Amino acid sequence: MRTIVLTIEYDGTPFSGWQIQPDPRRQTVQGVLEKALAEMTQEKIRVRFASRTDAGVHARGQMVAFETARDAIPPIGFERGLSNYLPSTVVVRRAEVGEDGWDPRRNSRGKRYRYTYWNDRAPTALLRDRAWWLKPGRLEAEPMHRAAQVFIGTHDFDAFRSSSCVARHAVRRMYRASVEVVAPHTIVFEIVGNAFCKNMVRIMAGTLADVGLGKIDEKDVKAVLESKDRTKAGMTAPPQGLCLEEVVYDDRLPLRPKDDVDV
Amino acid sequence: MRTIVLTIEYDGTPFSGWQIQPDPRRQTVQGVLEKALAEMTQEKIRVRFASRTDAGVHARGQMVAFETARDAIPPIGFERGLSNYLPSTVVVRRAEVGEDGWDPRRNSRGKRYRYTYWNDRAPTALLRDRAWWLKPGRLEAEPMHRAAQVFIGTHDFDAFRSSSCVARHAVRRMYRASVEVVAPHTIVFEIVGNAFCKNMVRIMAGTLADVGLGKIDEKDVKAVLESKDRTKAGMTAPPQGLCLEEVVYDDRLPLRPKDDVDV
Repeated sequence: MRTIVLTIEYDGTPFSGWQIQPDPRRQTVQGVLEKALAEMTQEKIRVRFASRTDAGVHARGQMVAFETARDAIPPIGFERGLSNYLPSTVVVRRAEVGEDGWDPRRNSRGKRYRYTYWNDRAPTALLRDRAWWLKPGRLEAEPMHRAAQVFIGTHDFDAFRSSSCVARHAVRRMYRASVEVVAPHTIVFEIVGNAFCKNMVRIMAGTLADVGLGKIDEKDVKAVLESKDRTKAGMTAPPQGLCLEEVVYDDRLPLRPKDDVDV
Repeated sequence: MRTIVLTIEYDGTPFSGWQIQPDPRRQTVQGVLEKALAEMTQEKIRVRFASRTDAGVHARGQMVAFETARDAIPPIGFERGLSNYLPSTVVVRRAEVGEDGWDPRRNSRGKRYRYTYWNDRAPTALLRDRAWWLKPGRLEAEPMHRAAQVFIGTHDFDAFRSSSCVARHAVRRMYRASVEVVAPHTIVFEIVGNAFCKNMVRIMAGTLADVGLGKIDEKDVKAVLESKDRTKAGMTAPPQGLCLEEVVYDDRLPLRPKDDVDV
């Protein structure tokens, strides 16, 4: 038995999220990946993964690990061969051999997410499934950037998690946060943290949108954070703007604390 | 009667190109746009346009003009209202009143196109309909950029047009050409010219790919151009990498010559 580690990119648009669901009519990324692995290896494979992304959310660097007895298949075989069993919306970017039983979530030091806003009076055809268009769209990126700095450090993010979040607590450490105009009409909020609660980046993105629209002042975000009250934060931004860019494993970040829960 | 000018963005993926076709089962951008205009105005409208993009090719700045007797509809009414009649793959970015009978093609001074390559050993899920992945993908951007400089100036581009191109001649003037890495694994060829023959940018992109892969030397592109022989140039790059970014009307470029034919 070997442990194989995959880096997966996917377009979340057609999926009911990452995690496999009891209802087989709901297509999930984990579901199509495990089906592809079963077809390729003729084994029943259940994967471990780093992040349970929501329906419609994308990933450039989801991390997955599993065991296989098919020792004749080299990692490059999974990298190249799995695409024959996967839809074009899911791609294996890299396959490698991992330590026995390696776990993509427990071994991670953090995650990097990007949230993209489309900032124009007209909507977008080419980025319609990759960005959030706020009619009529007059976001100011600079105050959003300043407001996002409040997230950096270790805080209780109770105000920024879904009421259905089942994590024991919402204390998380954010390392970097930025908002910038990356292309015409395109604003990106990027954040790196040790772990994230349910909907946390999307609620941050919704709150920063309120700052960008001038609905709340950039200085108000600190009070929202300190309130620990979900009703004080902005809306949960829609999923298509969000992308899991990277799961961080190297020494640039400290290991996540043992009691960290991430849903 | 007023002349209305629209700037249109579209995702070419689901369309059999821009131009309306005799077979009504073939969905075209012009077709869905004229249908939307008819539904909104209750008039039969035939639009004039700047560029006949191929099946699968995208646009951020297609230009369209038409006449309407519905004087009660302001330009902003077309800009906002047409989206109710259009699929999400076609967007009106801007609507304005034009001079009577204004023609988007005859009045243009040139066009700017971008061709995107995905340059990695693995394919891409998120850009699968926006870029060309060349297995195994080892493009070198710098020699491609140097080779592209050969296109600048007035040349007979016979070697770079489809054998089915019906233009009287292939003499065109290119103003700018560049190849650069714009993001990880993402290389963009951008070109501005007064007009383009059928498949011209895609054949240029295919030829530059041969340079980037080292199949031909960067210095060979000049000989290909001078040969005026289509069989000497590279393949026609696939359509999904191509996007009509802008039709140029301002004084930065000279007016296109009267005998210019663009198909």
